[in-house]
Amino acid sequence: MNMKLVVSCLIFASLLGALLVAASGRPAAETLKEADRAAIVAVLTSQQNDWNKGDIRGFMAGYWNSPELTFAGTRGFTRGWRPVMARYEKNYADKAAMGTLDFQELELRSLGPDSALVLGKWHLQRQAGDVGGIFTLVLQRFPEGWRIVHDHTTQSPPETK
Amino acid sequence: MNMKLVVSCLIFASLLGALLVAASGRPAAETLKEADRAAIVAVLTSQQNDWNKGDIRGFMAGYWNSPELTFAGTRGFTRGWRPVMARYEKNYADKAAMGTLDFQELELRSLGPDSALVLGKWHLQRQAGDVGGIFTLVLQRFPEGWRIVHDHTTQSPPETK
Repeated sequence: MNMKLVVSCLIFASLLGALLVAASGRPAAETLKEADRAAIVAVLTSQQNDWNKGDIRGFMAGYWNSPELTFAGTRGFTRGWRPVMARYEKNYADKAAMGTLDFQELELRSLGPDSALVLGKWHLQRQAGDVGGIFTLVLQRFPEGWRIVHDHTTQSPPETK
Repeated sequence: MNMKLVVSCLIFASLLGALLVAASGRPAAETLKEADRAAIVAVLTSQQNDWNKGDIRGFMAGYWNSPELTFAGTRGFTRGWRPVMARYEKNYADKAAMGTLDFQELELRSLGPDSALVLGKWHLQRQAGDVGGIFTLVLQRFPEGWRIVHDHTTQSPPETK
C-alpha cells in the first residue's frame, strides 16, 4: 500500500547517495575545511612542542603508528613507525642535537575528504650550528585524528656566502 | 497520511547517506583501483619516454598545468608549471645533461577517490656521471586525467666507497 510513496522515498535516497558520492569525488581546488586545517596545525604544533622538550616519542605521536608509515630522507626511504622513530633517535641523540625546532610558512591543501598535503620549512636552532630545509607531509584522517602517513624532508645545503 | 512510512523512509535515507559518508571517509589502507594504477603508471612512463627523447615540454605534460603546481627540490620550493619547466630547462640544458631517465620501485597509494601518492627512485645515466635519488609525487585526477600536483625530489649524496 502506498507504493508510490515508497518508490519516491527510494528515489530520494538514491539521489542523496549519488549527491554524497559526487561531493566526495571533487578534485583539486577543493579547500580544506577550517576545522581540519586547525586540527592539522594542532598536530604539527604539538610535534614542535614535544621536540623542544626533547621528547621524540611525543613528537612521533603525530605520525601514523603503522608499519606502512613512510619517511623519505637524504639517504632513501624509511618504512614503519618504529624505524622512523629509531632514525630520529640515532640522528638526534640528545637535547643539544635536537635543538629548537620551528616549522615555518605552512601551506595546507586538501587532497580529498580525508587527506591533506602540507608543505613547509623547518629550522633547528642549535649551538653546534643551525640546520633547516623543507618538507612535504601527507596526512590522513583516522578515528583518532589526523596523522602524517608520509614525510619527505630535505635538508638545505649550507648557505654559500 | 501514513506518516510512519514517510518517517521510516527518511530514516532509511539518512542511514544510507551516513553509510556513504563513512565509506568515502575510509582512511589509509584503501587500495587504488587497477584502472587508476594503470593510468598513473602510464603518465610516468610517458614522462620517462619524453625525457629520454630530450623533450622537456612533453615530460611536463605529466604535471598539473597550473600556477599552483609545486616542486620541492634541494634549494626550496618552485611554484607554477612554467617556473617548474624553466627549472628543468636550466638544470638540464641539453640531451647530454638530461641523460637516460629510469624510474624504479614505484609504490602507489590511494589518498581518496581522486588523489594518489607515488613514491619511487629515479636514476639518470649520463656520460658526465650518473645521478639519482628518490621522489614523492602527489597526483590528482582531473577531467583530462591524472596529473602530478606536487613533486618532492631528492638527489642522493654521492656514494661513499
